[in-house]
This record gives sequence, C-alpha cells and structure tokens, in this order.
Amino acid sequence: MRGTRRALLRTGLAGGLGAAAALTLPTQGSANGVRPPSGKGPHIGILLYENFTLLDVAGPLEVLSRAPDADVSLIADRTGPVRCDTGHAAMVADYALGDHAKLDVLLVPGGSNDGVTSAGENSRILDWIRAVDRRTTWTSSVCTGAWVLGQAGLLRGKRVTTYWAAGPVVEERFGAVYVPERHVRDGKLLTGAGVSAGQDMALWLSEKLSDRATAEALELAVEYDPRPPFGTGNAVEAPQERKDLALKLIEDSLP
Amino acid sequence: MRGTRRALLRTGLAGGLGAAAALTLPTQGSANGVRPPSGKGPHIGILLYENFTLLDVAGPLEVLSRAPDADVSLIADRTGPVRCDTGHAAMVADYALGDHAKLDVLLVPGGSNDGVTSAGENSRILDWIRAVDRRTTWTSSVCTGAWVLGQAGLLRGKRVTTYWAAGPVVEERFGAVYVPERHVRDGKLLTGAGVSAGQDMALWLSEKLSDRATAEALELAVEYDPRPPFGTGNAVEAPQERKDLALKLIEDSLP
Repeated sequence: MRGTRRALLRTGLAGGLGAAAALTLPTQGSANGVRPPSGKGPHIGILLYENFTLLDVAGPLEVLSRAPDADVSLIADRTGPVRCDTGHAAMVADYALGDHAKLDVLLVPGGSNDGVTSAGENSRILDWIRAVDRRTTWTSSVCTGAWVLGQAGLLRGKRVTTYWAAGPVVEERFGAVYVPERHVRDGKLLTGAGVSAGQDMALWLSEKLSDRATAEALELAVEYDPRPPFGTGNAVEAPQERKDLALKLIEDSLP
Repeated sequence: MRGTRRALLRTGLAGGLGAAAALTLPTQGSANGVRPPSGKGPHIGILLYENFTLLDVAGPLEVLSRAPDADVSLIADRTGPVRCDTGHAAMVADYALGDHAKLDVLLVPGGSNDGVTSAGENSRILDWIRAVDRRTTWTSSVCTGAWVLGQAGLLRGKRVTTYWAAGPVVEERFGAVYVPERHVRDGKLLTGAGVSAGQDMALWLSEKLSDRATAEALELAVEYDPRPPFGTGNAVEAPQERKDLALKLIEDSLP
C-alpha cells in the first residue's frame, strides 16, 4: 500500500497527478460527505428534479467545480436522491429550495418531457427560480432546462438556445428567439444547447467567473479535446431520418 | 397544465421532443426509482467509489443508457450515496458488488489520487473486477480508472490510455504502454483518456453494442457537436505552464 502511494506521489511530484493525494480529505469526514459552501468564491446552484438529464448536470458541474474557490450546490424540491430520466442513475440533492439565500449562478438542467413538464408545473420550483434569478449574476439552462426557465417567465423576448428538437417549442410557447448555437448569452441569461453542450457553456462561463488563463487550464484539466467518432451531432446538418431515430432512441430509453 | 402538456406534445408530434411525454412513467413508480435490468440488451456496470470523478461516470452513462435495450447499473462496495472527488455531488450506487452475476460491459471511472489509490487498495473491489472481467465482452476505464484496472492486474503489457498526467504512472507501475489517444482498444480492454474522453469512448462502444446508424443517432441524441471555447484541452500541445495550472486547479478543487 505504501508502495502504491509512493509511486503515485513520486510521479506526481515529477509533474504528474500531484501531491493532491496527500492532501485529500476522505469525504466521509463530513456528514454524508456533503461539502458546505466556503463562501470564498462564486456559488453555483444546480437544480435537480425527477427525470432530469444526467449529463446536463454533470458536464457543467465537473467544469465549474474546478473553478477557483467555486462552491457548487445541488438543490431540489426536497433533499435526497433524485432519479434521472432513464432511471439508471440518481444524484443526491444536498440542499432543498431556499437553503441558500443567494446564488451567483443558477443552472437548470433539461430532462425528459415528463421531467421538464412536471418541473415547469411545480409552483415551488418556479417561485424559487424567479426569486433566485433576481440576485444571480448568471441564470442558465442546459438543453430543455430552457423550458423550465420559460415557465418561470424568464425567456420572453430573449435570444436562447435549447435542445435541437425543442427550438420550436420555446419560440411558440415563450416568445423567445431560438438561436441554434452551442450556447447563447442574452444579458445575464445563458442558455446551452442539448445535453453535452453544457460543457462548452460551462467552460465559457468559467472565464467570466475567473480569467482566460484559468479557463484555458480548466479545459485541459478535464482533458476536453473532443473527438466525436461519427461527426453526426449537429442537428442542422442531420437528415430527418437520423433525427427521427435519435428521438426514438430517447423515447425508448425511458422507463 | 393540460395546455403545457399539449403544447409539448403537439410540437413533439410535429418532429420535436416527441411522444415520450405521454409514455414516460414517473420514476417514483419503483422502489427508490431504481430501474431493474430488463435483460433484453447489453448490461453495462459502472463502478462507483468514494472520490470518483463525476463526468467519468456521467458521460458514458448518458450515451450508453440510450443504446437500444441497454441496462446500466451503478455498483459500489456498498449501496447508497457515493461522493465524488470535489465533494460537490454524490451519485447513488443502486447495487453492491456481486449483485449482478454477469456484466457485458464493465466501466471503471477515474477519481482523485486519494480515490483511485483507495479503490486500488480495496481487495473486495479488485477481486470483483477480476471476477467480472472474466465474463465481460468489454472491460473499460475512463481517466485514472486505468489505475484501478492496473491494480487488478489487467493492464500488464497492454496498450492503454489514461489521464494525460497519469501516463507515466501506468507505464512505470503496470508495464502498460501509454498511447496518448482519446480511447485505446487492446483486445476487449477499452481505455479512455481524461474525464471528458468517456463520451467519445462510449459513442465508439455504442456502435459495437448496436450498429453504425444507431451510434450516429446517439451522437445526435446527446447533441454531441462539441465546440471547445479555447482549444486548450490537448495535453500534448499544452505548454508546461498550463499543465501545472490545470493540476493545481484540480488539487485546489478537492475538499
């Protein structure tokens, strides 16, 4: 065991993974391992709700949680496990609505139609989003999280992006202007395209929360040098047949 | 509320998010929302351990859970919440080691130095990995998950990739050959580079688990059309100064 640790540290100190191993505290150290906000840096609050889309949360969280002194809090209507749309995973909401008086960044993930429809009909969630938005520096969404922001009344007349198949919905229902870009800023409203787009959006945001050199290093920290194997992820270029199959795969993946 | 649902469905049926809303079952339907394996498709088991890296798990899970009839199970030494390396989030292990007799795909995520060192010293985890590996079609890792596979004795003489800063470690300790590519296949061993690389690896794997047309549609389903804002995610091209800052940001992000 000592040998293992030494091997990691020696390489680490030689420019590898680093001395973090010696410094890391076991998460069992605090109650349920919850890491309370330090208050030293930006506080990012991410909403969880039943049937959210996992990567919409995890992509931005992975990037933003590495920003200097950043606090990240997972917040839901109730604390405890919240199941994602496919039912294959649950994340834990460490905080309930109202546990934090102020957030610098609010991020609302997308989810299945059932998930975003239910969240967008939950008056406690919508009231909380409106209250938090009054004091945020950035209010953001990933994928169909834009639907929930729209239900809270935050998209009217705004330039936004969302999941490629949901563009017409946000335009028709909320009077927003759908811009099919990876992420779109309109004032302090920052919206991301579908699912994986949250990573690009979060890296862009990380520069605003810190500085360019830090954001460039964060992109390296998560080794974000993507190599899409098929190059078929752009909906504007995709044939209808592939779009239909993509939507069918999503439908079929739900419980 | 009906209006909301109709608006989604109407657009959906017109080529938008689709009829999934009408078909989605609330996850509250089953105990803790856990979705039991259907047995109809490939069974992907993802290991969780304290101080794992969130995106290493969520990236592949998001892609693979949309593959036709795929079952995905989150498995840990004990069931229940498992905290990620930054302490900002926890995922729920729905299953304990040994709950599933056979897995088609085993995926081991990376984690902080403390996380992978501890997991790589846990004989229950290592024995389980060796036992599961005997019957898998694919045994895979993301990022420093390769360290855990190496501790289980599965990397000796293999061509592998891992987190950019960990390449020297796996070569020195396990006699593996580090190949700085996005993902590397050696027989049934499939290793991914750091953190975000799990998405590329999972899309590549999804073709093996289904077919090319399905994999191309999965790339669109998660709107994987990445636009790295800085283009600084490649470690081979990165100056030492940026590498040092990236590793410092990771160390500083730990509890």
